[in-house]
Amino acid sequence: MIEDKTPQRTSLAQLGEFGLIDHLTKHFGVSQESTLKSIGDDAAVLDFKDKKILVSTDLLIEGVHFDLAYMPLKHLGYKAVVVNVSDICAMNAKATQITVSVAVSNRFPLEALEELFAGIALAADEYKVDVIGGDTTSSQKGLIISITVLGEADADEIAYRNGAKENDLLVVTGDIGAAYMGLQVLEREKQVFQVNPNSQPDLDAYTYLIERQLKPEARKDVRTLLHALEIKPTSMIDISDGLSSEIIHLCKQSGVGCNLYEDKLPLDPQLINVCEEFGIDSTTVAINGGEDYELLFTIKMEDFDKIKGNPNFTVIGHMVPESEGIHLITRADTKIPLKARGWNALSEES
Amino acid sequence: MIEDKTPQRTSLAQLGEFGLIDHLTKHFGVSQESTLKSIGDDAAVLDFKDKKILVSTDLLIEGVHFDLAYMPLKHLGYKAVVVNVSDICAMNAKATQITVSVAVSNRFPLEALEELFAGIALAADEYKVDVIGGDTTSSQKGLIISITVLGEADADEIAYRNGAKENDLLVVTGDIGAAYMGLQVLEREKQVFQVNPNSQPDLDAYTYLIERQLKPEARKDVRTLLHALEIKPTSMIDISDGLSSEIIHLCKQSGVGCNLYEDKLPLDPQLINVCEEFGIDSTTVAINGGEDYELLFTIKMEDFDKIKGNPNFTVIGHMVPESEGIHLITRADTKIPLKARGWNALSEES
Repeated sequence: MIEDKTPQRTSLAQLGEFGLIDHLTKHFGVSQESTLKSIGDDAAVLDFKDKKILVSTDLLIEGVHFDLAYMPLKHLGYKAVVVNVSDICAMNAKATQITVSVAVSNRFPLEALEELFAGIALAADEYKVDVIGGDTTSSQKGLIISITVLGEADADEIAYRNGAKENDLLVVTGDIGAAYMGLQVLEREKQVFQVNPNSQPDLDAYTYLIERQLKPEARKDVRTLLHALEIKPTSMIDISDGLSSEIIHLCKQSGVGCNLYEDKLPLDPQLINVCEEFGIDSTTVAINGGEDYELLFTIKMEDFDKIKGNPNFTVIGHMVPESEGIHLITRADTKIPLKARGWNALSEES
Repeated sequence: MIEDKTPQRTSLAQLGEFGLIDHLTKHFGVSQESTLKSIGDDAAVLDFKDKKILVSTDLLIEGVHFDLAYMPLKHLGYKAVVVNVSDICAMNAKATQITVSVAVSNRFPLEALEELFAGIALAADEYKVDVIGGDTTSSQKGLIISITVLGEADADEIAYRNGAKENDLLVVTGDIGAAYMGLQVLEREKQVFQVNPNSQPDLDAYTYLIERQLKPEARKDVRTLLHALEIKPTSMIDISDGLSSEIIHLCKQSGVGCNLYEDKLPLDPQLINVCEEFGIDSTTVAINGGEDYELLFTIKMEDFDKIKGNPNFTVIGHMVPESEGIHLITRADTKIPLKARGWNALSEES
């Protein structure tokens, strides 16, 4: 098998492709009862018994989805798992397994891949997902990560995007916008560093925002919370591309409209401060900034009492007939049509 | 949705990422009973009832795994599905669903992606696998394809790599080495073309070899054939990296040795002719050339009569005690230790 003869920097060319995925995942355990056979054969073997199976996949490309200038590899590995797990959480289901494929150019030594997989292992442990397969290969440029996640749920608990009804309440978990502003802070620091490599950044005022960007968490707890409250969401989606864009997805697929209330948006105090510092409108950030990996869902109006005052949930609007459209109701009580912009579009403006 | 306003060449930047995977897969149907919900939500939803589930994944990188100079995009799409389906066939199981993620640099217009997905659709139809998810994004360089395949099987029919026993017979499907020589022919033609772009290649003598390289098929029929013959393979693997390397995998995981007989290797007459033309030893090609996507498996000796004379199967050796090692028995009755070289290693030599 592969031996690490130069602990400082082992080139991947020395290793060849055979067995690299085995080397990188050899300490990964199996925690799910549904995993019968993990890495090591032509395919993994699973048994979900009478559960339904959820499958989702994401491709992450260096220079497109992440910048290694401020994203440590271990964080990147962790986040890559989280964004996939979040897709399963967004079905009101439980993530159980992932496959991880990685392509790297030869500028990456083995130690870099080990860092990446250390982050993957940490997330796999935190979210109790088994790494059941994968592929490692060389790339022509940069780092490429492809993850497919599997999950399980009972048929009657799965929440789709198309189940929202008129008068349903629109609910979001946690707070929003922080991951986007975390990215703005990091990009500013990167530019400062490029001008003066000796500068020592003081990031104390931004810790929450930076953590939301570099180490987001998937809301695996929401399924349990809702179950305990005896609430079945009528529809659900995760906030990866930005609140407005996800609201529009829910509305289009459900055939309803929506009124979203500006004064209800849950913002962290640090976000408000930093938006002021950057001279950016915090509502714009909350609505169009992405990558928060919070969940957005609708519930029946009669379930309102069950979540009222719960610190995990904020009612931010309600669904209306499709003909009424999708609007933001501002603090000044003006009605503005909501547009899907996503954080990329926002990024170009700011 | 996305409209193709300039049929000749639509830049991906015009489209944005939203909905591109929907556009590319909108004509894809659902053929598997186990697919409850396909593309369009945060995750697909599947139900395999009392079947076990198989999962495998592969990452294909331009310039590493394929060369668009002689690999048409439609063929590439087809082959990308086949190599994944083959991994499920190699478990003696039936492939049922795939997810397809694609990253492309902006040198690819939408029409190129449509060609790629036309090939994926063709293979999905041929192998009755549903495309249930995916991701499309931009890359910094070249084309990247990541496919995860799911399959199903009854628990007692799954064949692992570790079940081979002493005295079991080693069997291969079809013929081997052709895909590797097909690649040699294509690389020679590429060089000729680079010297003289007006040259008209006459490839009639190489059609079978080229087809094996450009349009390989996965042996989905073998599971049915073996079932009809009432044979349960004791171990199984597919030949992606070369016969010798796969034999060594089977032996190591099963804790046995093997005698492989040179005079039993099934070679197509076209392969023998072209090896002569290129001055390459056909046994070397058969043993170390890869990408044939035939299946290699072991059966109990008492099952020999059931497959004797069957044109789909060739007995090429038998398993021996681990202490006896893994050897090729040549036509001259010499015993040579078998080494895992794989087709990349071979390629460097030739």
